[in-house]
Amino acid sequence: MTKLFEKLLQPQITGIQTYVPGKPISELQREYNLSRVSKLASNENPLGASPKVLQAIRDQLADIGRYPDGSAYYLTHEMAKFLNREPEEVAFGNGSNEMLELVARIFAGPGDEIVYSQYAFAIYAISAQIVGAKGVEVPAKGWGHDLPAILKAITPKTKVVYLANPNNPTGTMFTKDEWEAFISKVPSDVIVVLDEAYFEYVNDTDYANGLEYIDDYPNLLVSRTFSKAYGLASLRLGYLVGHKELIGYINKLRAPFNVNHYAQVAAVAAIKDQNFVKKTVDYNLSGMAQFLAVFDKLNIDYIPSYGNFVCASFGDKTNEVNQELLKKGVITRPLAGYAMPEYLRISIGSSTENQHFISVITSLMK
Amino acid sequence: MTKLFEKLLQPQITGIQTYVPGKPISELQREYNLSRVSKLASNENPLGASPKVLQAIRDQLADIGRYPDGSAYYLTHEMAKFLNREPEEVAFGNGSNEMLELVARIFAGPGDEIVYSQYAFAIYAISAQIVGAKGVEVPAKGWGHDLPAILKAITPKTKVVYLANPNNPTGTMFTKDEWEAFISKVPSDVIVVLDEAYFEYVNDTDYANGLEYIDDYPNLLVSRTFSKAYGLASLRLGYLVGHKELIGYINKLRAPFNVNHYAQVAAVAAIKDQNFVKKTVDYNLSGMAQFLAVFDKLNIDYIPSYGNFVCASFGDKTNEVNQELLKKGVITRPLAGYAMPEYLRISIGSSTENQHFISVITSLMK
Repeated sequence: MTKLFEKLLQPQITGIQTYVPGKPISELQREYNLSRVSKLASNENPLGASPKVLQAIRDQLADIGRYPDGSAYYLTHEMAKFLNREPEEVAFGNGSNEMLELVARIFAGPGDEIVYSQYAFAIYAISAQIVGAKGVEVPAKGWGHDLPAILKAITPKTKVVYLANPNNPTGTMFTKDEWEAFISKVPSDVIVVLDEAYFEYVNDTDYANGLEYIDDYPNLLVSRTFSKAYGLASLRLGYLVGHKELIGYINKLRAPFNVNHYAQVAAVAAIKDQNFVKKTVDYNLSGMAQFLAVFDKLNIDYIPSYGNFVCASFGDKTNEVNQELLKKGVITRPLAGYAMPEYLRISIGSSTENQHFISVITSLMK
Repeated sequence: MTKLFEKLLQPQITGIQTYVPGKPISELQREYNLSRVSKLASNENPLGASPKVLQAIRDQLADIGRYPDGSAYYLTHEMAKFLNREPEEVAFGNGSNEMLELVARIFAGPGDEIVYSQYAFAIYAISAQIVGAKGVEVPAKGWGHDLPAILKAITPKTKVVYLANPNNPTGTMFTKDEWEAFISKVPSDVIVVLDEAYFEYVNDTDYANGLEYIDDYPNLLVSRTFSKAYGLASLRLGYLVGHKELIGYINKLRAPFNVNHYAQVAAVAAIKDQNFVKKTVDYNLSGMAQFLAVFDKLNIDYIPSYGNFVCASFGDKTNEVNQELLKKGVITRPLAGYAMPEYLRISIGSSTENQHFISVITSLMK
């Protein structure tokens, strides 16, 4: 195709990696002629959402023609109460993706640097590209964040640092001690975004809950999501918690109606049903234990994970294993795009899905 | 509040007007102690959405934990078929708001100009602010777009022109002849965004359907929405139709999962129920006729409108009229923010809501 408009693009646009979306499950099912598909590719909640969430949505379907509340009034107040913070310290977005990107757009531009770890969530690098800033990738240590090295990578040009704890796709966690040594030394004019998308799954006293640090470090923004433990991935809802001034800038740049009505309704009901979150986390721990036992038995190498997923290595057979899994209806996430071509990231699914994966992988490894 | 971070902002952020969201209806109801509220403020569909849409959503609630299809595969194909265009010529966003903003972000930056009409949709000016471009507002003619003047306002610095037909908030329309004289003279390296959010409501042979011009003018993008005639405002869904290359850039910059699953499911069902759209348009025409008859009878001046709303003038009594309407539970849109302080924009609602407004305004004007 002759490019008619390429010369008109803003310079940073050309550099953005084009997102290649996967096929819908139903297309894959048709293509491979599969009767049964287990999608263990996107770290979704196998329990879906709380029944109370579904009921809240049903109860509001008559309002489908009305615009969402642009200020997410009830959701913001419910969340602030739940977190024991002020409503002005919380902002909501169309997935945490939007929130992460807004931070880059507010604070960074051409000539600036944005720092993140190797093997970290792809959106961090993309956010740097979107604003034309230089993405500085700091080599990982044992698949996880090397916080002292990240600290050293901060220069006067650094505007934003993205950290994930636990990290996606590797599932690694850094400890409270490592975190405190880090955040206490970050210059106060560098915005630190601590992405805690998977924090609900962590069951470890060494974990540093980001919210406990926002009073001491006004340059810290904690990012969380309703897509994982709350099971609302379909509806797109993420949030940032931090200093009122920073949250104010986020609310200034976001679109007036960025969060749809049903995401708001669902989230209010979801926050009120913490038993569902507990059930989700317990279910995940038991599925994870089952996976790890099988990996150990089959001599499959894996990265210990604090999330609802685990990366397993199949060496130079990874592509082949992935293809065989697909043919049998098991979708996992190959990590070549993360420069981890020897790994598949496998989400912990329902017991039926887990059993499906286990039976296919067991027969493959024989 | 001491500003800790203001000096760190990207320069264009400071200039963005902060969006002030309205109160949720239920808060207003509490504040004014109202038993009944008619919201005629946001040009929503008083019929809600097609019953087939609601059923499609109910049928998919079990999938709430799954991510949306990032490529909106089925929706894109259904829409392309409906419009008789290629799937690569259509892109979807979190409301047309996101689409309008993405165009500015792709093609304009500091030093550039973005042109739009006086009294046009506020998002055009905000999109210019967001990218740090100069917003060039061209004086309106009879409350509508002065296309020859807009053409003259285009300079070598102009990257994007936003037009609305019909226009919101004034409801004015420009004709096919005016449009053809305009688009044929716009330089081919200026992106023209023709916002047709209200096109379904137009019943006039002089109307220029933007889709008929995208083959001749590859620099033309047509913006439409599911928030009005399709009644899906709560779910946030807009789309752009245009040249594959332009649509490709939009898909490059948008977030991978910008359109939630239920917006996709709802829209597929909505496209298939065009009878509902026809019913909506007929219902609107009859409500509009009812409003205009009352305005004529009460000697209220108004701007003839091609949309699902109408602007009525109450001169220096506008604030007072608005307050009295609110006290009686009728919410309309004051247009002081659009530099039209003498006007209220009133959406055509359900027959009950319309009757509510008519009875309050009739007693007020006596």
